[in-house]
Amino acid sequence: MNHFQPRTNDMFFILQQVLQAPQQLQALPSHAEADADLMQQVLEESGKFVAEVVAPLNRDGDEIGAQFRDGAVTMPPGFRDAYQAFWQAGWPSLACAMEDGGQGLPAVLEATLYEMLSAANHGWTMAPGLLHGAYECIKHHASDELKASYLEKIATGEWLATMCLTEPHAGSDLGMCRTKAVPMADGRFALSGTKIFISGGEHDLTDNIVHLVLARLPDAPPGPKGLSLFLVPKFYEDGSRSAVVCERIEEKMGLHGSPTCVMRFDEAVASIVGEPGKGLNAMFVMMNAARLHVGLQGIGLLEAAWQKADAYAKERRQMRAPGSHAKAGEADFIELHPAMRRILDTQRAWIDGGRVVAYRTALELDILKHHPEPQRREAASRWCALVTPVLKAAWTDQAFHGASACLQVFGGHGYVREWGIEQVVRDSRVAMIYEGTNEIQAIDLLLRKTLPDAGAGLLALLDDLAIDLGTSDDATRLRTALARFRTLVTGQLLPRASAPDAPPDLAHWIAEDFLRVVTLLLMAWSWSRVANADGTDDPRWQRPQSAFWRWIWPELELRMGIMAEALARPAAAAQ
Amino acid sequence: MNHFQPRTNDMFFILQQVLQAPQQLQALPSHAEADADLMQQVLEESGKFVAEVVAPLNRDGDEIGAQFRDGAVTMPPGFRDAYQAFWQAGWPSLACAMEDGGQGLPAVLEATLYEMLSAANHGWTMAPGLLHGAYECIKHHASDELKASYLEKIATGEWLATMCLTEPHAGSDLGMCRTKAVPMADGRFALSGTKIFISGGEHDLTDNIVHLVLARLPDAPPGPKGLSLFLVPKFYEDGSRSAVVCERIEEKMGLHGSPTCVMRFDEAVASIVGEPGKGLNAMFVMMNAARLHVGLQGIGLLEAAWQKADAYAKERRQMRAPGSHAKAGEADFIELHPAMRRILDTQRAWIDGGRVVAYRTALELDILKHHPEPQRREAASRWCALVTPVLKAAWTDQAFHGASACLQVFGGHGYVREWGIEQVVRDSRVAMIYEGTNEIQAIDLLLRKTLPDAGAGLLALLDDLAIDLGTSDDATRLRTALARFRTLVTGQLLPRASAPDAPPDLAHWIAEDFLRVVTLLLMAWSWSRVANADGTDDPRWQRPQSAFWRWIWPELELRMGIMAEALARPAAAAQ
Repeated sequence: MNHFQPRTNDMFFILQQVLQAPQQLQALPSHAEADADLMQQVLEESGKFVAEVVAPLNRDGDEIGAQFRDGAVTMPPGFRDAYQAFWQAGWPSLACAMEDGGQGLPAVLEATLYEMLSAANHGWTMAPGLLHGAYECIKHHASDELKASYLEKIATGEWLATMCLTEPHAGSDLGMCRTKAVPMADGRFALSGTKIFISGGEHDLTDNIVHLVLARLPDAPPGPKGLSLFLVPKFYEDGSRSAVVCERIEEKMGLHGSPTCVMRFDEAVASIVGEPGKGLNAMFVMMNAARLHVGLQGIGLLEAAWQKADAYAKERRQMRAPGSHAKAGEADFIELHPAMRRILDTQRAWIDGGRVVAYRTALELDILKHHPEPQRREAASRWCALVTPVLKAAWTDQAFHGASACLQVFGGHGYVREWGIEQVVRDSRVAMIYEGTNEIQAIDLLLRKTLPDAGAGLLALLDDLAIDLGTSDDATRLRTALARFRTLVTGQLLPRASAPDAPPDLAHWIAEDFLRVVTLLLMAWSWSRVANADGTDDPRWQRPQSAFWRWIWPELELRMGIMAEALARPAAAAQ
Repeated sequence: MNHFQPRTNDMFFILQQVLQAPQQLQALPSHAEADADLMQQVLEESGKFVAEVVAPLNRDGDEIGAQFRDGAVTMPPGFRDAYQAFWQAGWPSLACAMEDGGQGLPAVLEATLYEMLSAANHGWTMAPGLLHGAYECIKHHASDELKASYLEKIATGEWLATMCLTEPHAGSDLGMCRTKAVPMADGRFALSGTKIFISGGEHDLTDNIVHLVLARLPDAPPGPKGLSLFLVPKFYEDGSRSAVVCERIEEKMGLHGSPTCVMRFDEAVASIVGEPGKGLNAMFVMMNAARLHVGLQGIGLLEAAWQKADAYAKERRQMRAPGSHAKAGEADFIELHPAMRRILDTQRAWIDGGRVVAYRTALELDILKHHPEPQRREAASRWCALVTPVLKAAWTDQAFHGASACLQVFGGHGYVREWGIEQVVRDSRVAMIYEGTNEIQAIDLLLRKTLPDAGAGLLALLDDLAIDLGTSDDATRLRTALARFRTLVTGQLLPRASAPDAPPDLAHWIAEDFLRVVTLLLMAWSWSRVANADGTDDPRWQRPQSAFWRWIWPELELRMGIMAEALARPAAAAQ
């Protein structure tokens, strides 16, 4: 079995030729130095680290996994050394501000780094995966005192961080959290409760672990507004250990390289982060960063699956393909069989299309942070708010289903562990669930981000997609679809879903379909951009482009049809 | 975690109310006694055995699995006792002829038995899964001498059987097999070669194992016509052991309760089954039985996943559902959330729709065997030939994807092993591959069974589906779709795919879409039949019926569109 090999040229092509990332970044005062050379160099160096240090540990991560004993977690062989090399080389701080010990590079380069890391070793990558979110959270919400102790350690990745949200009875609905924080005389808090599904709650990668924990003050109102955010380290500054215990780690379908911990807090001494009752607010910074990150995991895992299947299909022969030129009695390479070609090109279409969307989202994050014009920042904010849930849901969905399709290319060999493809299927499944299930993402997009402003943000996004499309057939198809979707939204969705007599669940029934339509429009936009770029008239780009329009795009009609039908008969739709 | 509980009432309802199985069977001279009471009694008894004996072993089957050591395979705890009880109670011989030691009951009752067994314990069920095929194969092709030694042992299940086809370099294309059979002086053969992916090649369930092996005589022509079928037992009648060795068992994604063996034959003394060069012919009996069986596995596994998710959704609360009547601060049952309801009802639609199709197929097998009129037998033969690959491909596909959807109902709890739902996802994945990958089934349906007779069989099948539809809206929708598909087939598919200048791969590109269209037509037929049955106006049947038309049926347009597009531009379709 071969380890994952990043193909940084492919990634750079999208950054430079499709998105003109260097020009966009150089227009920002803080990233004036982010030219094509710098971007390419960071991509290559990070690719090298990923290939040489992280990728080779993936199999042991699955087969040996994280081991739990007496409250301690031993990570799989090589994980600690790789992590130590990772932070010491400065990778976690890539996009952190220079004044915090970071390198001040654009977020989009962090995005490409994490995409590669997830492809190479999803389990290992879970550990640093929350770092940047924790960094932003502490930077923007913690007191100066806390920052002095924790900000640089988190920025550089010398210490790792967790996000302690879920409780046994409170999953998607954090408002139900019961963990208590009781004020102490010195201004700190005694925090008690149990949190579950805590990735990296305990491990031996770093000397300290910083837990960010949602909990409730004694006088807090019920529901989400009663939640505050607290910080509890594994070790305090004086070296004493906090009253935080890892009770066990979960036995999972996959992702064995990442310990999923049950964490018990027994009057653990905690510091508050931000204001009382604003915990969810402070956490949202982290959760949004995490959602883009999970979308990138999806793209990376699908690339990992595709690489395996593509290599297998090019080196193994099976049956005669139609129109075969093979000698009598000889079989053809698997990639010559149409059903297999379709699988491979379809996944390629999702990967490349997803990269264009995800890298643009990361660029918009840079623009949101640094662009001098408020109007441009507003557009960036709109893009990130609307596109992040789409990326998270659609590309984690595709990672799992596409990895399964890639497994099919191996036939029976795909089902045995040898080739590593079944690990990608198992590992990727979790990404459809964590950081808000994909169903929650769909509700977020439609019910929280589209209906409340009467579609204003969404319609502006659709306008954004129509800019600079060119005049190709594909562009025309996309423009027509954008117009039709706009009509559906303004003519049926908005008036009917917000009608006074609308069944309260009407929008919920079509949230998934709505998210899929936006997904397909974003994909079509991506592929129209790719078609307009120089150097995409060879099979490397033509085949997935054709796959997109032939086999992925037709879902648009299906989804719009389901929406239209449900909206036409609201009472029947809402059972 | 609860064990699987067969719901035999649901199954009986489809047999009696939807398919009128008792009446159909009683019209066959050999099954005059198969009345409703008998059928219900067999269903209940088999359900009891499945629930009490087989289902409780499923978890250990996965977690402990089959163990290999020094050529021997130890099955998971309880597997041997359960199998001994199974054959001694007469279950394997349910549908074998009475003169062979069987009970002479209809095939449709064997179908329901195996559906339940697969739902309860897929790994265990692999062991007897090939028995009936082996029985038919020996009965119809073996010499009287071989029959005297083996037929009754296989019919009763006292001995288990394997099907040794695949070789390391020959998967889907059996014509490439290299295993050699050299004639010996006594009329027997010395068989040498290596076979892979042999389910139950070695185990401790029975005292003997009978291998049916495809191999090549020294003077055999290359390709599939050079294959003959041989029988090699683990132990000969004199008690001596044959030269067949299990070299190892595969490490797999799931199905750990079934050993997948690499079998080496070292001049093993073998008897020929049937005529030289007709091995594939003799094997096809087995393979067709196996394909229906695998389709039933898909239905069973999806039912197992649905039961778990349905129970969880009814007992766990999560967030407030739209239009909630829950008290302030209280969450709603998961089943009240539209996205979860959609998942549950959609799977229910596939399970019930699949049962109607699968049970009818099993009934057609009974009719094919026993109906006095040749014309009716011909119709039955057509149904089985065309519908079996559809059942195999579409319902194993749905088992995996639907089980994954059911996992989603559990949120993060679905990804941990505790609830057993992730096992169903892992176990079910293999069924998309074995007994001919789902891509092979699509090619079989379109290229081997539809194009060669210029669509005659397919068009007759479409006519069959239009019989007795009634006048409901659903029936009208189905009739319209049948007519449109007929036009697509006769107007575009047949003329263009068989045009002299048609690209040789044209039909291959749309084989999957073709199979999906037939799937959806069969499903629509099922649900129209259900709608016409008495007692289906309650939510138990109304909800999945509505789910079918709202969320499954729209794929028909999508697939017909892809086909029409490819056929309209054959050169573009065939790259």
